[in-house]
Amino acid sequence: MTTTFGHTARHKFWDFDSQNTPLNHGSFGATPKDVEEKRFELIRKIEKNTDKFMRVDLYKMEDETRELVSKWINSEKLNTVFVPNASVGFNTVIRSLPLKEGDVIVHCSTLYGACDKTLQFMENRYGVKSAKVDITYPEDSDKDIVEKFRKVIKENPKTKMVIFDTVSSMPGCLLPFNELTQLCKDLDVLSFIDGAHGIGLVELNLKENEPDFFVSNLHKWGYVPRGAAVLVVAKKHHNKIHTLPVSHTYLDDEFEAASELDKSRRLVDRFTFVGTTDFSTHLSTPAAVKFREQIGGEEAIRNYCFELAKKVGTFAADFFGTEVLENAAGTLTTAMVNIRLPVSEKWLNEASAEDKEHLLQVINTYPLENFDTFVPPVFHNGKLYIRLSCQVYNELSDYKVGVQSVKEALKQVPGVLAE
Amino acid sequence: MTTTFGHTARHKFWDFDSQNTPLNHGSFGATPKDVEEKRFELIRKIEKNTDKFMRVDLYKMEDETRELVSKWINSEKLNTVFVPNASVGFNTVIRSLPLKEGDVIVHCSTLYGACDKTLQFMENRYGVKSAKVDITYPEDSDKDIVEKFRKVIKENPKTKMVIFDTVSSMPGCLLPFNELTQLCKDLDVLSFIDGAHGIGLVELNLKENEPDFFVSNLHKWGYVPRGAAVLVVAKKHHNKIHTLPVSHTYLDDEFEAASELDKSRRLVDRFTFVGTTDFSTHLSTPAAVKFREQIGGEEAIRNYCFELAKKVGTFAADFFGTEVLENAAGTLTTAMVNIRLPVSEKWLNEASAEDKEHLLQVINTYPLENFDTFVPPVFHNGKLYIRLSCQVYNELSDYKVGVQSVKEALKQVPGVLAE
Repeated sequence: MTTTFGHTARHKFWDFDSQNTPLNHGSFGATPKDVEEKRFELIRKIEKNTDKFMRVDLYKMEDETRELVSKWINSEKLNTVFVPNASVGFNTVIRSLPLKEGDVIVHCSTLYGACDKTLQFMENRYGVKSAKVDITYPEDSDKDIVEKFRKVIKENPKTKMVIFDTVSSMPGCLLPFNELTQLCKDLDVLSFIDGAHGIGLVELNLKENEPDFFVSNLHKWGYVPRGAAVLVVAKKHHNKIHTLPVSHTYLDDEFEAASELDKSRRLVDRFTFVGTTDFSTHLSTPAAVKFREQIGGEEAIRNYCFELAKKVGTFAADFFGTEVLENAAGTLTTAMVNIRLPVSEKWLNEASAEDKEHLLQVINTYPLENFDTFVPPVFHNGKLYIRLSCQVYNELSDYKVGVQSVKEALKQVPGVLAE
Repeated sequence: MTTTFGHTARHKFWDFDSQNTPLNHGSFGATPKDVEEKRFELIRKIEKNTDKFMRVDLYKMEDETRELVSKWINSEKLNTVFVPNASVGFNTVIRSLPLKEGDVIVHCSTLYGACDKTLQFMENRYGVKSAKVDITYPEDSDKDIVEKFRKVIKENPKTKMVIFDTVSSMPGCLLPFNELTQLCKDLDVLSFIDGAHGIGLVELNLKENEPDFFVSNLHKWGYVPRGAAVLVVAKKHHNKIHTLPVSHTYLDDEFEAASELDKSRRLVDRFTFVGTTDFSTHLSTPAAVKFREQIGGEEAIRNYCFELAKKVGTFAADFFGTEVLENAAGTLTTAMVNIRLPVSEKWLNEASAEDKEHLLQVINTYPLENFDTFVPPVFHNGKLYIRLSCQVYNELSDYKVGVQSVKEALKQVPGVLAE
């Protein structure tokens, strides 16, 4: 089936503008035409009898979708609920857990921006502290990272929770998330896996190494329409995690359900109807799963994207005369690959924060305006990288546009490009 | 243009199942076919070049939509942002304002369930207290209600905020929201108008009587696809109100923007991109506004719905041998009308909380299962009412199905129906 991948798949299954070169799947995902049209059918169906949908069909469809997603990531079905995106999932947990002034949340330096801001808010508003684990790629091995986390947790005896990614956003690097979950268990602190880049990208088995909390976007690597995400909460925390917004279904932490059924459904019965919204996003997961099976299934998709990412890394590093951001064991690259940009040492040494911000801004706009493509840049460990995403609709030739556009962008700022 | 209203409009502009009698517009709204199809076009456009949309088009379209909505409710454009629904808007404010243990939020007894639960959460988690104003219809006049609020605020010197509806949900009754806003100013407490049933239902002029906070669903009475709402925040609070979830754009309360432009856009620049989601809902507001103009405009829509509600009230009260829930001045009924159900005094006196819950459940399910219609019931002031919503796609004949189905539901529980 992988013969259909590349531009054949692009033209058959997606509806990108002909001039657009999509190299940034990791940011927003891309919904296949077929999944989108099935979603529109569902929206039309909801409009035909909204009361019936909201009072009856929603609950059935939600349970069916939950069943499917639980199988996908091997999670306990009754620990598994849906939220609009990973940021909502993160805020749901962080802002309903009874955290206290002085409690510490440990996270790594490559934490997603929105999560970092949430932690800043928690500190500013409630005095909940953060402690940062500095990760420096490519030097750090997976083992180094685990040991760095261990050190910071031990230095902060009031650590309540540790947050880490499956695959970080910028740069896009696989983390040893199973080992970090085990570390949290060993040190008796809560684990929160930010799997924004999770489902559909990397293999997940939540029953094998159960974290306390896990969130994954379905709309990024899962082909589900935006915005849809899955939040998994270990059973022992069900009574403390409240919907965001708090809504009709709220029960106080101390409330004891009368029946075993109500106890077991404590979480899922809270999260199905949180407020009036367009439920067609996560309820399109069955259509997305069916589509993924039709084009070859999880392994075929992953193999194509990962192999392409390796080729893209080699090609782009060769083009720039640089290297891929990769550790000695070669575990960082998934379907996202990070390539160093040829920025002069002199410029890097002398650039102010504003200079760097300006350069990022140029790379964020020039390729879009002049090449109809977009490649996100990031400074890491004193160097500048771009992240290239690989999806089944991509071929190696796409990335020529990407690297060329970024090189042209670099030329827009005098002194940046290394000789 | 009002000649097109009623079933002509239903068949031309909406796509309800032929067997469905929609009498519950107030709960979830109903999107006209044309608005929905324009929304689908926008979603398809976003898929064609998602990076361009997320980085460029979104901001332009958001500003255009803001312009339109600000005109609709006469709000300051730069005080006006979008959230998925009123519950998110309410939680956005309540959970980002720096409220302290012991602070009091005053609200009325007809407060929306999700808001009430949010206040319970705030008390359980943070010790923020609530004080309730007991409203008893039909006895209370608008003036009585204002005086009851005044009394409770004065009894609670630590009152920080007062919440009241434009039109409450259950029962659906117009509140003297302009007078209550003025009361809050007089007593120097913050005002929060829950206009979930606001835009498209009642005339709003936020510049005339500026509340501190205002939220209104666009998807209920505004014909905008679910879920979309507008949140208006008075300028003096911009630095204290943070997106829900907290996201990339977060700035601490104390952060001082450098430029006048950034200061003026403090709120709107925070709320445009809060996380990856389907922006096509509130961005369909221009299509909804155009549709509303095409079918006759705000006044024609309101006149039809309000006049129909009066007729429906008379008809239904006559059918049940009861009366409409209305005060002496006749100000409670809008496009939603509440009719008392003929429940026996004996049953009402003897019924346990479980009995009442069971009866509500029967009324919530029997009409849907047997008559393909739905009419929400509510106990108020010791009596049982139903709320009937009136929209331009309805005609008086629709409500025969509604009242008949509810009467049949009442018969399902022995002893309920008054002789």
